[in-house]
Formats: sequence, C-alpha cells, structure tokens
Amino acid sequence: MNSFKISLAQFSPHIGNIEANVQKMIEQANAAKQQNADIIVFPELSTLGYPAEDLLLRPSLSKRTAAAFEQLAAVKDIVLVFGFVNQAEDGHRYNSAAVMKDGQVLGIYNKQNLPNYSVFDEKRYFTEGHQHLVFEYLGHKFGVLICEDVWTLESVQQLAQLNVESILVLNASPYEVGKPQHRIVTLKELAKQLNISIVYANQVGGQDDLIFDGTSFVINNSGELALEAPSFKEDVYTVEYDIQNKAYKKVESASALDTMAEIYQALVMATRDYVQRSGFPGVILGLSGGIDSALTLAIAVDAIGADKVQAVMMPYTYTSQISVEDATEQAKRMGITFGIAEIHPIVNSFMQTLAPFFGNSPADATEENLQARSRGTLLMGLSNKFGNLVLSTGNKSELSVGYCTLYGDMVGGFAVLKDVYKTIVFELAKYRNSLEEIPVIPERVITRPPSAELRPDQKDQDSLPAYDVLDAILYAYIEEDLSQDDIITKGFDQAVVEKVIKLVDRNEYKRRQGCIGPRISSRAFSRERRYPIVNGWKPGV
Amino acid sequence: MNSFKISLAQFSPHIGNIEANVQKMIEQANAAKQQNADIIVFPELSTLGYPAEDLLLRPSLSKRTAAAFEQLAAVKDIVLVFGFVNQAEDGHRYNSAAVMKDGQVLGIYNKQNLPNYSVFDEKRYFTEGHQHLVFEYLGHKFGVLICEDVWTLESVQQLAQLNVESILVLNASPYEVGKPQHRIVTLKELAKQLNISIVYANQVGGQDDLIFDGTSFVINNSGELALEAPSFKEDVYTVEYDIQNKAYKKVESASALDTMAEIYQALVMATRDYVQRSGFPGVILGLSGGIDSALTLAIAVDAIGADKVQAVMMPYTYTSQISVEDATEQAKRMGITFGIAEIHPIVNSFMQTLAPFFGNSPADATEENLQARSRGTLLMGLSNKFGNLVLSTGNKSELSVGYCTLYGDMVGGFAVLKDVYKTIVFELAKYRNSLEEIPVIPERVITRPPSAELRPDQKDQDSLPAYDVLDAILYAYIEEDLSQDDIITKGFDQAVVEKVIKLVDRNEYKRRQGCIGPRISSRAFSRERRYPIVNGWKPGV
Repeated sequence: MNSFKISLAQFSPHIGNIEANVQKMIEQANAAKQQNADIIVFPELSTLGYPAEDLLLRPSLSKRTAAAFEQLAAVKDIVLVFGFVNQAEDGHRYNSAAVMKDGQVLGIYNKQNLPNYSVFDEKRYFTEGHQHLVFEYLGHKFGVLICEDVWTLESVQQLAQLNVESILVLNASPYEVGKPQHRIVTLKELAKQLNISIVYANQVGGQDDLIFDGTSFVINNSGELALEAPSFKEDVYTVEYDIQNKAYKKVESASALDTMAEIYQALVMATRDYVQRSGFPGVILGLSGGIDSALTLAIAVDAIGADKVQAVMMPYTYTSQISVEDATEQAKRMGITFGIAEIHPIVNSFMQTLAPFFGNSPADATEENLQARSRGTLLMGLSNKFGNLVLSTGNKSELSVGYCTLYGDMVGGFAVLKDVYKTIVFELAKYRNSLEEIPVIPERVITRPPSAELRPDQKDQDSLPAYDVLDAILYAYIEEDLSQDDIITKGFDQAVVEKVIKLVDRNEYKRRQGCIGPRISSRAFSRERRYPIVNGWKPGV
Repeated sequence: MNSFKISLAQFSPHIGNIEANVQKMIEQANAAKQQNADIIVFPELSTLGYPAEDLLLRPSLSKRTAAAFEQLAAVKDIVLVFGFVNQAEDGHRYNSAAVMKDGQVLGIYNKQNLPNYSVFDEKRYFTEGHQHLVFEYLGHKFGVLICEDVWTLESVQQLAQLNVESILVLNASPYEVGKPQHRIVTLKELAKQLNISIVYANQVGGQDDLIFDGTSFVINNSGELALEAPSFKEDVYTVEYDIQNKAYKKVESASALDTMAEIYQALVMATRDYVQRSGFPGVILGLSGGIDSALTLAIAVDAIGADKVQAVMMPYTYTSQISVEDATEQAKRMGITFGIAEIHPIVNSFMQTLAPFFGNSPADATEENLQARSRGTLLMGLSNKFGNLVLSTGNKSELSVGYCTLYGDMVGGFAVLKDVYKTIVFELAKYRNSLEEIPVIPERVITRPPSAELRPDQKDQDSLPAYDVLDAILYAYIEEDLSQDDIITKGFDQAVVEKVIKLVDRNEYKRRQGCIGPRISSRAFSRERRYPIVNGWKPGV
C-alpha cells in the first residue's frame, strides 16, 4: 500500500433532526467510498447538529443517538469518524467523537476543552473529557480532537508527544469575517511547529443566527496546505496520503474569497438555510429605495431565486419620487414580484383615532413610527395571507443606536443585515453590482445620502454622525469593549461619543425584541453580547 | 458579653450601578448599627447586583470595584460581609465575598460551586474557588458560603468538620413558586443534621425577567427557624445570638404567604422595579374586557399607583358590549385614566390597501391579526407620545402555543403574565378580588368563557383544549420535559397532545420576539428554555 485516502464531510445538519442527518451522513459516506476513501471525518456533533441548545437536555436524546449508531453501523468498508452526544454510563453527558468501522466502535473521544464564552455555552450541557484517543490504522497514527481542543496548545502538544502523525479534528466553528483564513494561517504554524498533520472537517450551513462556513482543510506537518474546501458549500472533499513522502498530496483548491465576497456568500447561505429549513415558500420585504432593502433584496434573490421573492414599496408623503423610481427599477432588473401600496389612508386613520388623545402635543417621532408601523403591519398581512417570510432590512449601525422602529421596520423573521455595519452595507452593494454588467442595484441607491424618509427632507446624518464615524465608535464600543473615555481619547468628539454610547445602552430593550439575523462580526448582539435591559452601568471609564 | 447581633441586608441592587449600590449598602450598614448589630451580611455580588451578565466582562469593572471598597472602608464599628467581583491577581475572575472591619479586609472567599444550568451562566464569567473561609469573631466561629455552595452538601459538610458554628450565606436566589419555603424547609433539615446554624441573606427585587424574593432567614443548629424576613420587601433584619444558649433568639416573623399571595406580590414587585428602574413615568395597557388585561391592570395599579396607569379599550365589530362595560367598570373601580378608541377606520384602511393584493383569498387569521396590530400600533403611539411603558397582557398558555399576535397584542416592554398559565391567571384574579369588599375585577370577567373576540362568537376553546387540559399538557412538556408519548401515556387525548406540542415547537420564533416578563415557574421561556428556532427535532419519544 502506497497511500490511503481521507474524505472530509463538509456537512450541513438540520439541527435536532437526527434521522435526516444520519441519512445524509450515510450518503456522504457512500460518496466518499466512490472516491475510494478509507476514512471519512464528519463535523462536531454531526448526528444532532450544532448548536442544539436545550434539545441536548431532552431525555430521549440517548435513545435517538443509539438508533443513529445502529443505522451508521450498516455502513461498511470505510471508517466513520463522527460527532455525537455521549450520554455516558457515569451519568455525564459528553461532546464526543466515535471511530466506527464496519459497525464496530473502535474508540470514543470526549471533548476536553469546552468553550463557554462568546456564542458558546458548552458547559451548560457537557462534562469535560480527560483522555486522548489515539489509534493506528493503515500504518498511520491518528489522534482525534474536537474543535476548541485544537486551539488549546496543550491538547495538541500531548498528541504530538504521543507521536501522532495526523490529527482528525471535528468542528462546528462559527463564521466571522476573516475567520476561514485565520484558522488556516494559525494551524499551519502549529502543524509545522509540532510536526503534525491536521485534517480539519467543519460544519457548513446557517443555523439561526450562526453561520458555519465549512472551509474544511488539510495541512501537512510541513505547514503546507494540502486541501482547502470551498466556503459555504456542502460536499465531500478527499485527500490522498502518500505513505512514502509522508504527506497529503496537494489538491487543487479554489482560492480564498475576498472579504466582501466572503461576507456576501455567508449572508446568502444563512438566508437560504433559514428560509428553506423553516419551510417557507418564499420571502417578502419592504423595498424603500434605500440601500439596506436594496441589498437585502439582492441577497434574497441570490439565496432562493427571484420567483420566490416579493417586494412591496409603501410610499408616504415624505417618500421621494426617486425612491419609488429606484425601487421599481431594481425590482424590474431582478425580476421579482413587486407591488406598490400607498400608506396615506392608514396613517391618516391612525392620526385621526389618536387625535383626541394627542390634543395639541407637537409632532415628534411618534408620527414617524406610525408610518413605519403601518408598513410593518402591511408586510405582516401579506406574509400571513400567503405564507412568505418577512425579511427585516435594518443594519447593525441602526440597531445599535435604535435608529429603527420596533414593530415597524423591525418586523420580520430574519434580519439579513442585522450584524452588518452600514459602511459594510455600501461595500457589499458595490461588490454585488460588480458581478454583472448591468448592476442589480441602481447606482443612485448607493450614491445618494441615506434617509429614512419619515419627515420632510430628512437625512440620517441629521440625527447621527457620518456613518464612517458612527461605525468606528460602535466598533470600538461593541467589538473592542472600549470605554467611553477610551474612545474619546482615540480622538473622537466627546459629545458624539457620549450620545452614541447612551443610545447603544438604552436600546437594549429594542434589540431584544428584534428578530434573529446572521452573525458575521466578532461581537454580534443577542447570543454573544448579553446585556441586562435594566442596567445602571454608567458610561465613563 | 452575653450576646452579639447579626443583621441581614435584604438588599435590592440596581444592576451595574455600583455607586448607587454602595451608597445604599452604607445606609443599610448604618441602619444595622442603629440596631446595635455587630455584623451585617449582604447578598451575593451586592456591589454590582445579580445577574449583571456581560457587564461582568467590561474592562473597567475592577477599577470600579476598587472604588467601592474604598467607600465601604469608611464604615466603622460593624463587620461588613458583602459580595463583589474579584478580579484576582492570578488573572481569574471570581464571584466573591469580603469580610471587612473598620476598613480592613479580614478575608476573601471565592464561590466554589458555580451554577451553569437553568437561568444561570456563571461559568461564562467566573472561575471556581477552592478554599474555605472560616473566621473567629465575638468568640464564635463563622464560615462564609455563596448561594449554590449551600446547596452543595460537600461544601457545608466541610465547614461543619471545621467546627464552624454559623455559616453566613450570601445569596441571589431567584424566585419561583414555592421556593421561599422550599429553601427554608431544606436548610432546616441540613442545619439540624450537621449541627450548624445558617444565616441566609438573599437579594430582593426584580431584574429583567428574574425576581429575587428576599425571604432571608436564620436557622439555628437545632433546625429551628429564628428569623424569616418578609418576601418582596427591602429592609434590614436583625437577630441576636445568645452565647449562653448557643442559639439565635427567635424573632417574631410574618407568616409565610399563601401561594396566590406569593405569586401576586412577586408580580407586583417585578413590575414596579422594571417600570421605576427603567425610568418610565407610568404604564399604559390595552384593556379588552378579558381576564388577562384585567389582572395585568390590577397588578400595575398595585405596583405603581392608579395615577400612573392608563388603559385604553379598543373595540371592533367583534367586541361584545359586555366587554366594553366590564372594562369601563374596572377602570372606574380602580380610578385609572381610561379611554376608548374604536379601531374600525384603521382596520378598514388596512383592508382596503391590501384588497388588490389579497384578491379573492378567503378571510383567515390574517384579518384577525390586522385587528390586533391596529391595537398594538395605537398603544405604541400613545406610549411614544407620552412616555408610558406598554404592558403586554398575554399569559404563558397563549405564548406557549402562539395564540397571540406578534406586533399586535404582544407589543410592550414588559409582559406581566408571561410566565403565568391561564389557570393560574384565574386564581390570581380571584385572589385579588378577595382582598377588598368591592372586587376590583368585575365578577363577569372571571366567569365568562375566554375569547380573543377577533371573529364573530369566537371562544378560546374553539381552537384550544379547555385551559385545565392545555395547561396540564404544557406543564408536562415544558416544565417536566416529558415527551409526546409520555404525555399521551398519562391519559391525554393523542390528537390534542400532538397539536399542542406542534404549536409549542413551531412558535419559538414568536416567543423570541416577545418582550421579557417575570419568571415565576420552574421553567420560563427565554433565559431558561433555550431552543433553536430552526429545529428539526421530531416529537414522539
């Protein structure tokens, strides 16, 4: 024997649906066998999917997992390395990997390093393992690790000391901007340093607010990359190990994505998976003539196809003619179902009903919110009647400072741009336009000054700092955890910083009621940034 | 010296507001000194408040905590035992207690047992301590524990083996029905068994969805209760230790609350704290003539006073005359601001605008939702204009099965009955009525069959099983984690169980966008029951 082959199952589970997942795992194992693979490595917790949250606490999970083992036992002539929930006889629950050959379990590994920070809550569910799993097969010495383990130097060093040649790593590593390449760069260094090869199989697909990019890879002990699977694509990828040369042979791989392409594809996959796995026939959104809804529309069309996308323009007194023109134009270019619904009669009926209560109170944001809520209710009416999911179109800059209306433009089941700052929204729109000769988003949508069009001649920049300034402050406060004083020291205007931080702090209640949306940053709201609503923390140091 | 005195600070912190908390701690220490106390024991993490969530990760926390120590150091002639976040020199963060006398720190204890289940996420923030703190003072041997520690037999046993006479326990133990007495009964047993006295100081007050009931107590090593502080009341309570008799002298205590009184007062306190600490001038709610809004109104009035409560009745075609009568009558009895706003013109304007889109589609829940959303938008308009917080009125039974309209009756910042099953709503209404000669909730509101009045002659029981059956199934599924098969085996109708579970599962997206509301059960939605929205788990076993 001169070589053996390992397949990486870049697998997209349906969380909780163990039967369907196992079925697909068997299909992937058969695909690997077609490629003459000797071993196939699946992602972390592949039978159940990651993160299953409190489904992990359901009493029948172990029974269901046992059934999964029985089905997988029928796969012959290939070694399966897969993730599962190990409800062990010692009464503890482990995040585990099984090595199975022809129905025999050759070994079980319990994850030793349980992340419990950022988006992770593994200590809520699992007990830490304390033993390595090393096995020899095909004359080669393998070790098994699960996700966080490979980022824990001690765990990898221990395998190196046991003379392991290749580590099989099962992962469910969530995406954030730049992370696919960051993983590879970091582990190349480690592989070289410890003289150990790394076979890294990652989950792919969107799950609620989390995106798993896949981008599985194989790194030789020289630090050379042998395989890099494409991001955001479910498939089986195979490498061959040359026993003589003691190295995995280099496989021609797609080149890494540019940042905007990477984010764009991440959002497309997240949207597709949310819509399809929730069983919606299509989506609907409000198209305003502004850039957020324009970009959301483009992503929706790329995710599920123009025939499944409906957009509605809902003009009012303050809607400019060019907004209507641009929205109509984009809808035409993208070939989606499009309609216009004036909201004057609705807003007027609200105003009339409220008049006796309002008396002579001067107009304020209340009247603006009525417009937004009239639109939200219309969208929900169309959604309820025909079953399409409402996509919410707000961006992270807006949501951070509460520049959005609860039950108005915030309605929807999935907020595509929830974790995308406005400055990135512009970049993504330009990126999408660069892909085709006739840009799908009319140029004017990108170049005109952003406006919510909720009062005459309104511009976002009347109430907010310029978006490049706003986003820089938000990034410093949210992603970098800098204090108000730190940010002012960086050179930003004191009054502006104080205003922005105050808005971020006091709008927690609003964000808490917003729908989920895909995480692409290093600190997304909700799962990752858990702040109390009633919160007396004073800004400052 | 024949005796010494210990005060229990039943303290209600403002989460994150360390300055204000320390100020109040100093006031409580002074009150204790007035009562000639030698020691005062504060709750867990008293300087910051519990749970502070990701505020614990803010870099300046240690600086702020140091300032708190400086201020507390000025308190003389009483020993302070208080909770704080210990950013230790070893780089770890601990959930800790300090023993301070005349500005000197005599000892620090790091919590050894960190709960990371149910509503708790302490392993996200803290490292476990590994050492006991025992000190002699006033000729008495004290040990210190923090909350979960006292429920960990080993920790208490170790203190008993060290001949500790009294354990000072700092707590932030969240309320659930029956828990105040459950704690006492359990620890009486333990105190007697291990021959150790327990001085238990608990946080009081509402914090977002969590209620801390206080109900601090002192148990002698004989198992006898020496002091039981009232639930839901912030104050300082003092006991005297008789050195000769080696026992805390019995203090006359209020008797324990009946279940409905306990729940009612819990909801009142939670509502008051949310409204006041968020800085709202008052509240507004939609009064429908039904029991949920009637009870919510009564709780609101008891929480913040009739002068700060506004209610609006928003009738439509299907609203019965008796609903209008009953709502008006209750508003009058309670002396609140009350108005009526017909929603016909609004619903009609929505229907007309949607007509070209709907074509000949038959009427369905869409039209019902338009009514609910018209009402929601009116309430939000009144809230935006005058600043009152909208209280949402839905109950746990409804929210469980999605029998409620997102952006409609679900609007609001605080859902008072969110964790209260409908059968308990009835009991609470009867309880509240029993307190006064003229019941505040008109009798008919309690006795007539519940209806959402969204279509002609609609009754809740047209689409749902009877509430006693529904609630029993929900309790089994949500609180007891029983499977569909288990519940059917208990004797419930198979089709009904299947329908209920399907509704619970598929309405996770709706609950996720609902506002927070006080937790009173052993498994509340959101913080405690964390389910994925996209979820392929099949009911059954």
